[in-house]
Amino acid sequence: MRWTSEISERGVRDRGFTLECEGRTVPGAVWTPAEGAGPRPLVLLGHGGGLHKRADYIVALARRLVRHHGFAAAAIDGPDHGDRRPDGGLDFEKVWAERLSRRAAPRPEAAGELTADWLATVAALQALPEVGGGPLGYWGLSMGTLYGVPLVASEPRVEVAVLGLMGIPPEDADEAWLVQLRAQMLGDAPKIACPVFLIAQADDELVPLENVLRLFAAIASRDKRLHLNPGLHSAFPAEEIDYSEAFLAKHLAPAGGK
Amino acid sequence: MRWTSEISERGVRDRGFTLECEGRTVPGAVWTPAEGAGPRPLVLLGHGGGLHKRADYIVALARRLVRHHGFAAAAIDGPDHGDRRPDGGLDFEKVWAERLSRRAAPRPEAAGELTADWLATVAALQALPEVGGGPLGYWGLSMGTLYGVPLVASEPRVEVAVLGLMGIPPEDADEAWLVQLRAQMLGDAPKIACPVFLIAQADDELVPLENVLRLFAAIASRDKRLHLNPGLHSAFPAEEIDYSEAFLAKHLAPAGGK
Repeated sequence: MRWTSEISERGVRDRGFTLECEGRTVPGAVWTPAEGAGPRPLVLLGHGGGLHKRADYIVALARRLVRHHGFAAAAIDGPDHGDRRPDGGLDFEKVWAERLSRRAAPRPEAAGELTADWLATVAALQALPEVGGGPLGYWGLSMGTLYGVPLVASEPRVEVAVLGLMGIPPEDADEAWLVQLRAQMLGDAPKIACPVFLIAQADDELVPLENVLRLFAAIASRDKRLHLNPGLHSAFPAEEIDYSEAFLAKHLAPAGGK
Repeated sequence: MRWTSEISERGVRDRGFTLECEGRTVPGAVWTPAEGAGPRPLVLLGHGGGLHKRADYIVALARRLVRHHGFAAAAIDGPDHGDRRPDGGLDFEKVWAERLSRRAAPRPEAAGELTADWLATVAALQALPEVGGGPLGYWGLSMGTLYGVPLVASEPRVEVAVLGLMGIPPEDADEAWLVQLRAQMLGDAPKIACPVFLIAQADDELVPLENVLRLFAAIASRDKRLHLNPGLHSAFPAEEIDYSEAFLAKHLAPAGGK
Protein backbone atom coordinates (compact mmCIF):
# COMPACT_ATOMS: atom_id res chain seq x y z
CA MET A 1 0.00 0.00 0.00
CA ARG A 2 1.34 3.36 -1.00
CA TRP A 3 0.06 6.73 0.19
CA THR A 4 -0.46 9.26 -2.58
CA SER A 5 -1.99 12.24 -0.75
CA GLU A 6 -2.95 13.42 2.72
CA ILE A 7 -4.97 16.32 4.06
CA SER A 8 -6.72 16.89 7.40
CA GLU A 9 -9.64 19.25 7.69
CA ARG A 10 -12.26 19.81 10.39
CA GLY A 11 -11.26 16.66 12.24
CA VAL A 12 -11.23 14.40 9.16
CA ARG A 13 -8.01 12.87 7.82
CA ASP A 14 -8.33 12.22 4.08
CA ARG A 15 -5.68 10.09 2.39
CA GLY A 16 -5.26 8.77 -1.14
CA PHE A 17 -3.56 5.43 -1.72
CA THR A 18 -2.84 2.73 -4.26
CA LEU A 19 -2.41 -0.96 -3.62
CA GLU A 20 -1.71 -3.96 -5.79
CA CYS A 21 -4.23 -6.78 -6.26
CA GLU A 22 -3.87 -9.65 -8.75
CA GLY A 23 -1.63 -7.49 -10.94
CA ARG A 24 -4.02 -4.50 -10.88
CA THR A 25 -3.18 -1.16 -9.27
CA VAL A 26 -6.19 -0.18 -7.17
CA PRO A 27 -6.59 3.59 -6.54
CA GLY A 28 -8.43 4.44 -3.34
CA ALA A 29 -9.16 7.00 -0.65
CA VAL A 30 -9.70 6.55 3.08
CA TRP A 31 -11.27 8.90 5.61
CA THR A 32 -10.61 8.56 9.35
CA PRO A 33 -10.85 10.75 12.42
CA ALA A 34 -7.78 13.02 12.55
CA GLU A 35 -6.79 11.44 15.86
CA GLY A 36 -7.30 8.26 17.85
CA ALA A 37 -6.90 4.52 17.39
CA GLY A 38 -9.42 1.94 16.21
CA PRO A 39 -10.96 -0.50 15.98
CA ARG A 40 -13.88 1.31 14.45
CA PRO A 41 -16.52 0.44 11.81
CA LEU A 42 -15.36 0.81 8.22
CA VAL A 43 -17.89 1.77 5.54
CA LEU A 44 -17.04 0.93 1.93
CA LEU A 45 -18.41 3.46 -0.57
CA GLY A 46 -19.03 2.36 -4.16
CA HIS A 47 -19.45 5.23 -6.64
CA GLY A 48 -21.87 5.34 -9.58
CA GLY A 49 -21.14 4.84 -13.28
CA GLY A 50 -19.12 7.60 -14.95
CA LEU A 51 -17.95 8.94 -11.58
CA HIS A 52 -14.95 8.17 -9.37
CA LYS A 53 -13.85 7.56 -5.78
CA ARG A 54 -13.93 11.27 -4.94
CA ALA A 55 -17.35 12.09 -6.39
CA ASP A 56 -18.97 14.85 -4.32
CA TYR A 57 -21.60 12.64 -2.68
CA ILE A 58 -19.01 9.99 -1.79
CA VAL A 59 -16.75 12.51 -0.06
CA ALA A 60 -19.72 14.16 1.68
CA LEU A 61 -21.03 10.88 3.08
CA ALA A 62 -17.52 9.75 4.09
CA ARG A 63 -16.90 12.96 6.03
CA ARG A 64 -20.25 12.70 7.80
CA LEU A 65 -19.57 9.09 8.84
CA VAL A 66 -16.22 10.16 10.30
CA ARG A 67 -17.35 13.37 11.98
CA HIS A 68 -20.74 12.27 13.31
CA HIS A 69 -19.98 8.66 14.20
CA GLY A 70 -16.21 8.21 14.45
CA PHE A 71 -16.30 5.61 11.68
CA ALA A 72 -13.72 5.07 8.94
CA ALA A 73 -14.82 5.19 5.28
CA ALA A 74 -13.11 4.15 2.07
CA ALA A 75 -13.74 4.37 -1.66
CA ILE A 76 -11.94 2.79 -4.59
CA ASP A 77 -12.31 3.56 -8.28
CA GLY A 78 -14.58 1.15 -10.12
CA PRO A 79 -13.38 -0.91 -13.11
CA ASP A 80 -12.44 1.38 -16.02
CA HIS A 81 -13.17 4.43 -13.86
CA GLY A 82 -11.21 7.19 -12.11
CA ASP A 83 -7.46 6.73 -11.76
CA ARG A 84 -7.68 3.31 -13.38
CA ARG A 85 -8.01 5.28 -16.61
CA PRO A 86 -5.10 7.05 -18.29
CA ASP A 87 -7.10 10.31 -18.26
CA GLY A 88 -7.96 10.14 -14.54
CA GLY A 89 -11.69 9.76 -15.22
CA LEU A 90 -12.70 13.19 -13.93
CA ASP A 91 -14.68 14.10 -17.05
CA PHE A 92 -18.09 12.57 -16.34
CA GLU A 93 -19.55 13.43 -19.75
CA LYS A 94 -16.71 11.63 -21.53
CA VAL A 95 -16.67 8.55 -19.28
CA TRP A 96 -20.44 8.26 -19.38
CA ALA A 97 -20.63 8.68 -23.16
CA GLU A 98 -18.13 5.84 -23.53
CA ARG A 99 -20.26 3.61 -21.32
CA LEU A 100 -23.42 4.45 -23.23
CA SER A 101 -21.71 3.69 -26.50
CA ARG A 102 -20.88 0.24 -25.00
CA ARG A 103 -17.21 0.69 -25.68
CA ALA A 104 -16.90 0.46 -21.92
CA ALA A 105 -19.95 -1.65 -20.99
CA PRO A 106 -19.38 -3.73 -17.85
CA ARG A 107 -16.85 -6.46 -18.60
CA PRO A 108 -18.03 -9.91 -17.47
CA GLU A 109 -15.01 -10.34 -15.21
CA ALA A 110 -15.26 -6.87 -13.65
CA ALA A 111 -17.48 -7.78 -10.69
CA GLY A 112 -15.13 -10.52 -9.54
CA GLU A 113 -12.12 -8.25 -9.94
CA LEU A 114 -13.70 -5.44 -7.94
CA THR A 115 -14.72 -7.80 -5.13
CA ALA A 116 -11.08 -8.93 -4.93
CA ASP A 117 -9.94 -5.30 -4.97
CA TRP A 118 -12.32 -4.43 -2.13
CA LEU A 119 -11.15 -7.37 -0.01
CA ALA A 120 -7.50 -6.38 -0.55
CA THR A 121 -8.42 -2.81 0.40
CA VAL A 122 -10.19 -3.95 3.57
CA ALA A 123 -7.18 -6.08 4.57
CA ALA A 124 -4.76 -3.18 4.05
CA LEU A 125 -6.94 -0.62 5.85
CA GLN A 126 -7.85 -2.82 8.80
CA ALA A 127 -4.12 -3.39 9.37
CA LEU A 128 -3.81 0.33 10.18
CA PRO A 129 -4.11 1.02 13.93
CA GLU A 130 -6.41 3.98 13.25
CA VAL A 131 -8.91 1.67 11.49
CA GLY A 132 -8.53 -1.78 13.06
CA GLY A 133 -10.76 -4.82 12.74
CA GLY A 134 -14.25 -3.40 13.25
CA PRO A 135 -17.45 -4.34 11.40
CA LEU A 136 -17.94 -3.42 7.74
CA GLY A 137 -20.75 -1.53 6.07
CA TYR A 138 -21.35 -0.99 2.36
CA TRP A 139 -23.00 1.95 0.56
CA GLY A 140 -23.30 2.15 -3.21
CA LEU A 141 -26.00 3.13 -5.70
CA SER A 142 -26.39 2.31 -9.38
CA MET A 143 -22.97 0.95 -10.48
CA GLY A 144 -22.18 0.92 -6.77
CA THR A 145 -24.95 -1.66 -6.41
CA LEU A 146 -23.99 -3.52 -9.58
CA TYR A 147 -20.62 -4.24 -7.99
CA GLY A 148 -21.80 -4.05 -4.38
CA VAL A 149 -24.26 -6.95 -4.49
CA PRO A 150 -21.54 -9.55 -5.29
CA LEU A 151 -19.32 -8.12 -2.53
CA VAL A 152 -22.03 -8.01 0.14
CA ALA A 153 -23.24 -11.49 -0.88
CA SER A 154 -19.79 -13.03 -0.49
CA GLU A 155 -18.43 -11.16 2.54
CA PRO A 156 -20.11 -12.01 5.84
CA ARG A 157 -18.17 -9.26 7.64
CA VAL A 158 -20.43 -6.73 5.89
CA GLU A 159 -23.10 -6.16 8.54
CA VAL A 160 -25.26 -3.56 6.78
CA ALA A 161 -25.71 -2.35 3.20
CA VAL A 162 -27.32 0.57 1.40
CA LEU A 163 -28.06 -0.24 -2.24
CA GLY A 164 -30.29 1.02 -5.03
CA LEU A 165 -30.84 2.53 -8.47
CA MET A 166 -29.98 -0.88 -9.96
CA GLY A 167 -31.90 -4.10 -10.25
CA ILE A 168 -32.53 -7.45 -11.82
CA PRO A 169 -33.34 -7.28 -15.56
CA PRO A 170 -36.51 -9.09 -16.66
CA GLU A 171 -36.56 -12.70 -17.87
CA ASP A 172 -36.91 -11.58 -21.49
CA ALA A 173 -33.88 -9.26 -21.44
CA ASP A 174 -31.83 -10.01 -24.54
CA GLU A 175 -28.69 -7.88 -24.44
CA ALA A 176 -25.85 -10.18 -23.41
CA TRP A 177 -24.72 -8.08 -20.46
CA LEU A 178 -28.26 -7.81 -19.11
CA VAL A 179 -28.71 -11.58 -19.34
CA GLN A 180 -25.46 -11.98 -17.46
CA LEU A 181 -26.40 -9.31 -14.90
CA ARG A 182 -29.70 -11.09 -14.28
CA ALA A 183 -28.01 -14.42 -13.67
CA GLN A 184 -25.43 -12.88 -11.38
CA MET A 185 -27.96 -10.89 -9.35
CA LEU A 186 -30.30 -13.88 -9.03
CA GLY A 187 -27.34 -15.86 -7.74
CA ASP A 188 -26.07 -13.24 -5.31
CA ALA A 189 -29.13 -11.45 -3.91
CA PRO A 190 -30.49 -14.51 -2.05
CA LYS A 191 -27.13 -14.74 -0.23
CA ILE A 192 -27.54 -11.25 1.26
CA ALA A 193 -28.86 -11.56 4.80
CA CYS A 194 -27.69 -8.38 6.57
CA PRO A 195 -29.98 -5.36 7.04
CA VAL A 196 -30.43 -3.63 3.68
CA PHE A 197 -31.80 -0.20 2.78
CA LEU A 198 -32.69 0.07 -0.91
CA ILE A 199 -33.26 3.33 -2.79
CA ALA A 200 -35.44 3.49 -5.93
CA GLN A 201 -36.59 6.29 -8.23
CA ALA A 202 -40.10 6.03 -9.67
CA ASP A 203 -39.19 7.71 -12.96
CA ASP A 204 -35.75 6.09 -13.39
CA GLU A 205 -34.85 6.41 -17.06
CA LEU A 206 -31.85 4.04 -16.83
CA VAL A 207 -33.01 1.21 -14.59
CA PRO A 208 -36.73 0.33 -14.75
CA LEU A 209 -38.41 0.48 -11.34
CA GLU A 210 -39.58 -3.11 -11.84
CA ASN A 211 -35.93 -4.22 -11.92
CA VAL A 212 -35.23 -2.53 -8.59
CA LEU A 213 -38.33 -4.10 -7.02
CA ARG A 214 -37.19 -7.47 -8.36
CA LEU A 215 -33.85 -6.99 -6.59
CA PHE A 216 -35.65 -6.00 -3.39
CA ALA A 217 -37.73 -9.17 -3.56
CA ALA A 218 -34.67 -11.38 -4.21
CA ILE A 219 -32.60 -10.12 -1.27
CA ALA A 220 -32.91 -12.61 1.58
CA SER A 221 -32.52 -10.16 4.48
CA ARG A 222 -35.28 -10.18 7.04
CA ASP A 223 -34.63 -6.48 7.73
CA LYS A 224 -34.87 -4.90 4.29
CA ARG A 225 -36.53 -1.59 3.59
CA LEU A 226 -37.15 0.44 0.45
CA HIS A 227 -37.59 4.15 -0.16
CA LEU A 228 -39.16 4.96 -3.51
CA ASN A 229 -39.01 8.62 -4.56
CA PRO A 230 -40.25 10.51 -7.58
CA GLY A 231 -37.80 11.63 -10.23
CA LEU A 232 -35.11 10.47 -12.61
CA HIS A 233 -32.18 8.12 -11.88
CA SER A 234 -29.82 10.75 -10.50
CA ALA A 235 -32.46 12.85 -8.75
CA PHE A 236 -32.68 10.85 -5.53
CA PRO A 237 -33.33 13.32 -2.70
CA ALA A 238 -30.64 14.47 -0.27
CA GLU A 239 -32.76 13.19 2.60
CA GLU A 240 -31.80 9.66 1.53
CA ILE A 241 -28.18 10.50 2.35
CA ASP A 242 -29.38 11.53 5.81
CA TYR A 243 -31.32 8.28 6.10
CA SER A 244 -28.35 6.26 4.79
CA GLU A 245 -26.12 7.77 7.44
CA ALA A 246 -28.64 6.96 10.19
CA PHE A 247 -29.21 3.42 8.89
CA LEU A 248 -25.48 2.64 8.71
CA ALA A 249 -24.91 4.13 12.16
CA LYS A 250 -27.78 2.24 13.74
CA HIS A 251 -26.38 -1.10 12.62
CA LEU A 252 -22.65 -0.45 12.95
CA ALA A 253 -22.75 1.38 16.29
CA PRO A 254 -25.98 0.23 17.95
CA ALA A 255 -25.00 1.92 21.20
CA GLY A 256 -24.82 5.28 19.48
CA GLY A 257 -21.17 5.51 18.47
CA LYS A 258 -18.74 7.83 20.03
CA MET B 1 -71.24 21.64 16.83
CA ARG B 2 -71.19 20.78 20.53
CA TRP B 3 -68.09 20.68 22.73
CA THR B 4 -67.86 17.58 24.91
CA SER B 5 -64.48 17.99 26.61
CA GLU B 6 -61.54 20.37 26.87
CA ILE B 7 -58.05 20.13 28.31
CA SER B 8 -54.89 22.16 27.70
CA GLU B 9 -51.47 20.66 28.31
CA ARG B 10 -47.97 21.73 27.30
CA GLY B 11 -49.28 24.34 24.88
CA VAL B 12 -51.82 22.05 23.20
CA ARG B 13 -55.57 22.61 23.53
CA ASP B 14 -57.45 19.31 23.12
CA ARG B 15 -61.22 19.42 22.68
CA GLY B 16 -63.82 16.75 22.03
CA PHE B 17 -66.92 17.58 20.00
CA THR B 18 -69.91 16.15 18.21
CA LEU B 19 -71.65 17.53 15.17
CA GLU B 20 -74.60 16.49 13.06
CA CYS B 21 -74.23 15.41 9.43
CA GLU B 22 -77.00 13.90 7.31
CA GLY B 23 -78.75 12.64 10.46
CA ARG B 24 -75.59 11.08 11.90
CA THR B 25 -73.90 12.28 15.07
CA VAL B 26 -70.17 12.58 14.31
CA PRO B 27 -67.84 12.31 17.34
CA GLY B 28 -64.52 14.11 16.92
CA ALA B 29 -61.50 15.69 18.57
CA VAL B 30 -59.50 18.78 17.60
CA TRP B 31 -56.04 19.88 18.69
CA THR B 32 -54.88 23.49 18.39
CA PRO B 33 -52.22 25.70 19.93
CA ALA B 34 -53.40 26.83 23.38
CA GLU B 35 -53.27 30.43 22.22
CA GLY B 36 -53.42 32.48 19.04
CA ALA B 37 -55.66 32.89 16.02
CA GLY B 38 -55.55 31.18 12.63
CA PRO B 39 -55.62 30.69 9.78
CA ARG B 40 -53.33 27.69 10.07
CA PRO B 41 -53.04 24.34 8.24
CA LEU B 42 -55.46 21.66 9.44
CA VAL B 43 -54.42 18.00 9.28
CA LEU B 44 -57.18 15.39 9.26
CA LEU B 45 -56.20 12.15 11.01
CA GLY B 46 -57.96 8.90 10.06
CA HIS B 47 -57.53 6.07 12.56
CA GLY B 48 -57.08 2.37 11.74
CA GLY B 49 -59.64 -0.43 11.96
CA GLY B 50 -60.67 -1.45 15.48
CA LEU B 51 -59.32 1.81 16.92
CA HIS B 52 -60.84 5.24 17.52
CA LYS B 53 -60.23 8.99 17.23
CA ARG B 54 -58.05 9.04 20.34
CA ALA B 55 -55.83 6.07 19.52
CA ASP B 56 -52.34 6.66 20.96
CA TYR B 57 -50.60 7.28 17.63
CA ILE B 58 -53.34 9.70 16.50
CA VAL B 59 -53.03 11.80 19.64
CA ALA B 60 -49.22 11.69 19.51
CA LEU B 61 -49.08 12.87 15.89
CA ALA B 62 -51.71 15.54 16.53
CA ARG B 63 -49.76 16.97 19.47
CA ARG B 64 -46.53 17.03 17.46
CA LEU B 65 -48.20 18.87 14.57
CA VAL B 66 -49.50 21.49 17.00
CA ARG B 67 -46.37 21.88 19.13
CA HIS B 68 -43.72 21.69 16.40
CA HIS B 69 -45.51 23.44 13.55
CA GLY B 70 -48.41 25.46 14.95
CA PHE B 71 -50.89 23.43 12.88
CA ALA B 72 -54.38 22.31 13.88
CA ALA B 73 -55.26 18.61 13.76
CA ALA B 74 -58.56 16.75 13.95
CA ALA B 75 -59.78 13.17 14.15
CA ILE B 76 -63.29 11.70 13.90
CA ASP B 77 -64.42 8.18 14.70
CA GLY B 78 -64.72 5.93 11.65
CA PRO B 79 -68.00 4.24 10.70
CA ASP B 80 -69.04 1.73 13.37
CA HIS B 81 -66.05 2.77 15.51
CA GLY B 82 -65.42 4.73 18.69
CA ASP B 83 -68.26 6.81 20.09
CA ARG B 84 -70.45 5.88 17.13
CA ARG B 85 -70.84 2.57 18.96
CA PRO B 86 -73.02 2.15 22.05
CA ASP B 87 -70.01 0.70 23.91
CA GLY B 88 -67.64 3.59 23.04
CA GLY B 89 -65.36 1.36 20.97
CA LEU B 90 -62.41 1.44 23.37
CA ASP B 91 -62.01 -2.37 23.47
CA PHE B 92 -59.84 -3.04 20.42
CA GLU B 93 -60.00 -6.82 20.75
CA LYS B 94 -63.79 -6.77 20.72
CA VAL B 95 -64.16 -4.26 17.86
CA TRP B 96 -61.53 -6.03 15.80
CA ALA B 97 -63.01 -9.48 16.38
CA GLU B 98 -66.35 -8.17 15.13
CA ARG B 99 -64.73 -6.84 11.96
CA LEU B 100 -62.89 -10.10 11.35
CA SER B 101 -66.09 -12.05 11.78
CA ARG B 102 -67.57 -9.78 9.06
CA ARG B 103 -70.41 -8.78 11.29
CA ALA B 104 -68.94 -5.29 10.93
CA ALA B 105 -67.21 -5.49 7.55
CA PRO B 106 -67.09 -2.14 5.75
CA ARG B 107 -70.60 -1.21 4.65
CA PRO B 108 -70.78 -0.17 0.97
CA GLU B 109 -72.15 3.26 1.87
CA ALA B 110 -69.59 3.91 4.64
CA ALA B 111 -66.95 5.66 2.51
CA GLY B 112 -69.41 8.20 1.16
CA GLU B 113 -70.80 8.83 4.63
CA LEU B 114 -67.36 9.38 6.15
CA THR B 115 -66.34 11.77 3.38
CA ALA B 116 -69.47 13.81 4.12
CA ASP B 117 -68.69 13.66 7.85
CA TRP B 118 -65.12 14.91 7.21
CA LEU B 119 -66.34 17.80 5.05
CA ALA B 120 -68.87 18.84 7.71
CA THR B 121 -66.09 18.63 10.30
CA VAL B 122 -63.76 20.78 8.19
CA ALA B 123 -66.50 23.39 7.71
CA ALA B 124 -67.21 23.55 11.44
CA LEU B 125 -63.55 23.68 12.47
CA GLN B 126 -62.46 26.23 9.88
CA ALA B 127 -65.25 28.51 11.13
CA LEU B 128 -63.36 28.72 14.45
CA PRO B 129 -61.04 31.75 14.59
CA GLU B 130 -58.27 29.60 16.12
CA VAL B 131 -58.31 27.30 13.05
CA GLY B 132 -59.43 29.45 10.10
CA GLY B 133 -59.30 28.65 6.40
CA GLY B 134 -55.81 27.28 5.89
CA PRO B 135 -54.75 24.37 3.68
CA LEU B 136 -55.71 20.79 4.54
CA GLY B 137 -53.54 17.72 4.97
CA TYR B 138 -54.64 14.11 5.46
CA TRP B 139 -52.93 11.30 7.38
CA GLY B 140 -54.43 7.83 7.71
CA LEU B 141 -53.15 4.26 7.48
CA SER B 142 -55.02 1.00 6.88
CA MET B 143 -58.72 1.83 7.44
CA GLY B 144 -57.54 5.45 7.49
CA THR B 145 -56.50 4.93 3.87
CA LEU B 146 -59.59 2.92 2.97
CA TYR B 147 -61.68 5.98 3.85
CA GLY B 148 -58.97 8.54 3.14
CA VAL B 149 -58.53 7.82 -0.57
CA PRO B 150 -62.13 8.83 -1.46
CA LEU B 151 -61.81 11.99 0.65
CA VAL B 152 -58.45 13.07 -0.80
CA ALA B 153 -59.63 12.22 -4.33
CA SER B 154 -62.73 14.39 -4.02
CA GLU B 155 -61.43 17.33 -1.99
CA PRO B 156 -58.98 19.61 -3.82
CA ARG B 157 -58.28 21.60 -0.65
CA VAL B 158 -56.27 18.59 0.61
CA GLU B 159 -52.74 19.59 -0.40
CA VAL B 160 -50.78 16.61 0.97
CA ALA B 161 -51.62 13.08 2.11
CA VAL B 162 -49.94 10.28 4.02
CA LEU B 163 -51.51 6.91 3.26
CA GLY B 164 -50.59 3.24 3.52
CA LEU B 165 -51.16 -0.28 4.85
CA MET B 166 -54.09 -0.59 2.42
CA GLY B 167 -54.27 -1.15 -1.29
CA ILE B 168 -56.12 -2.27 -4.38
CA PRO B 169 -57.22 -5.92 -4.32
CA PRO B 170 -56.23 -8.03 -7.35
CA GLU B 171 -58.43 -8.50 -10.38
CA ASP B 172 -59.39 -12.00 -9.28
CA ALA B 173 -60.56 -10.98 -5.79
CA ASP B 174 -63.92 -12.62 -5.21
CA GLU B 175 -65.23 -11.48 -1.84
CA ALA B 176 -67.91 -8.90 -2.56
CA TRP B 177 -66.37 -6.14 -0.42
CA LEU B 178 -62.95 -6.63 -2.02
CA VAL B 179 -64.47 -6.39 -5.51
CA GLN B 180 -66.18 -3.20 -4.43
CA LEU B 181 -63.02 -1.84 -2.78
CA ARG B 182 -61.07 -2.50 -5.97
CA ALA B 183 -63.59 -0.64 -8.11
CA GLN B 184 -63.71 2.28 -5.71
CA MET B 185 -59.91 2.56 -5.38
CA LEU B 186 -59.39 2.29 -9.14
CA GLY B 187 -61.89 5.09 -9.54
CA ASP B 188 -60.46 7.36 -6.85
CA ALA B 189 -56.68 6.87 -6.90
CA PRO B 190 -56.19 8.40 -10.37
CA LYS B 191 -57.92 11.56 -9.09
CA ILE B 192 -55.29 12.08 -6.38
CA ALA B 193 -52.72 14.61 -7.57
CA CYS B 194 -51.30 16.16 -4.39
CA PRO B 195 -47.96 15.02 -2.90
CA VAL B 196 -48.45 11.57 -1.32
CA PHE B 197 -46.28 9.58 1.07
CA LEU B 198 -47.27 5.90 1.19
CA ILE B 199 -46.25 3.44 3.91
CA ALA B 200 -46.06 -0.32 3.25
CA GLN B 201 -45.04 -3.32 5.34
CA ALA B 202 -43.23 -6.14 3.53
CA ASP B 203 -44.72 -8.90 5.70
CA ASP B 204 -48.21 -7.40 5.98
CA GLU B 205 -50.53 -10.25 6.99
CA LEU B 206 -53.74 -8.29 6.37
CA VAL B 207 -53.07 -6.37 3.15
CA PRO B 208 -50.79 -8.06 0.60
CA LEU B 209 -47.83 -5.88 -0.36
CA GLU B 210 -48.85 -6.24 -4.02
CA ASN B 211 -52.13 -4.47 -3.21
CA VAL B 212 -50.28 -1.52 -1.68
CA LEU B 213 -47.93 -1.30 -4.67
CA ARG B 214 -50.99 -1.37 -6.95
CA LEU B 215 -52.40 1.61 -5.06
CA PHE B 216 -49.06 3.42 -5.34
CA ALA B 217 -49.04 2.87 -9.09
CA ALA B 218 -52.65 4.07 -9.48
CA ILE B 219 -52.19 7.37 -7.62
CA ALA B 220 -51.74 10.14 -10.18
CA SER B 221 -49.51 12.42 -8.10
CA ARG B 222 -46.23 13.41 -9.64
CA ASP B 223 -44.69 13.69 -6.18
CA LYS B 224 -45.43 10.30 -4.64
CA ARG B 225 -43.02 8.36 -2.49
CA LEU B 226 -43.13 4.99 -0.76
CA HIS B 227 -41.37 3.63 2.31
CA LEU B 228 -41.45 -0.16 2.53
CA ASN B 229 -40.40 -1.62 5.88
CA PRO B 230 -40.04 -5.16 7.19
CA GLY B 231 -42.63 -6.56 9.58
CA LEU B 232 -46.32 -7.19 10.04
CA HIS B 233 -49.23 -4.81 9.36
CA SER B 234 -49.13 -2.99 12.67
CA ALA B 235 -45.34 -3.02 13.08
CA PHE B 236 -44.54 0.05 10.96
CA PRO B 237 -41.57 1.79 12.57
CA ALA B 238 -41.88 4.93 14.68
CA GLU B 239 -39.50 6.71 12.30
CA GLU B 240 -42.35 6.81 9.77
CA ILE B 241 -44.28 9.03 12.18
CA ASP B 242 -41.24 11.33 12.20
CA TYR B 243 -41.14 11.25 8.41
CA SER B 244 -44.92 11.81 8.20
CA GLU B 245 -44.61 14.89 10.37
CA ALA B 246 -41.78 16.28 8.22
CA PHE B 247 -43.61 15.48 4.97
CA LEU B 248 -46.83 17.16 6.10
CA ALA B 249 -44.91 20.17 7.39
CA LYS B 250 -42.88 20.57 4.21
CA HIS B 251 -46.00 20.79 2.07
CA LEU B 252 -48.33 22.67 4.43
CA ALA B 253 -45.81 25.22 5.71
CA PRO B 254 -43.11 25.40 3.06
CA ALA B 255 -41.54 28.42 4.73
CA GLY B 256 -40.98 26.51 7.95
CA GLY B 257 -44.18 26.96 9.96
CA LYS B 258 -44.81 29.44 12.70
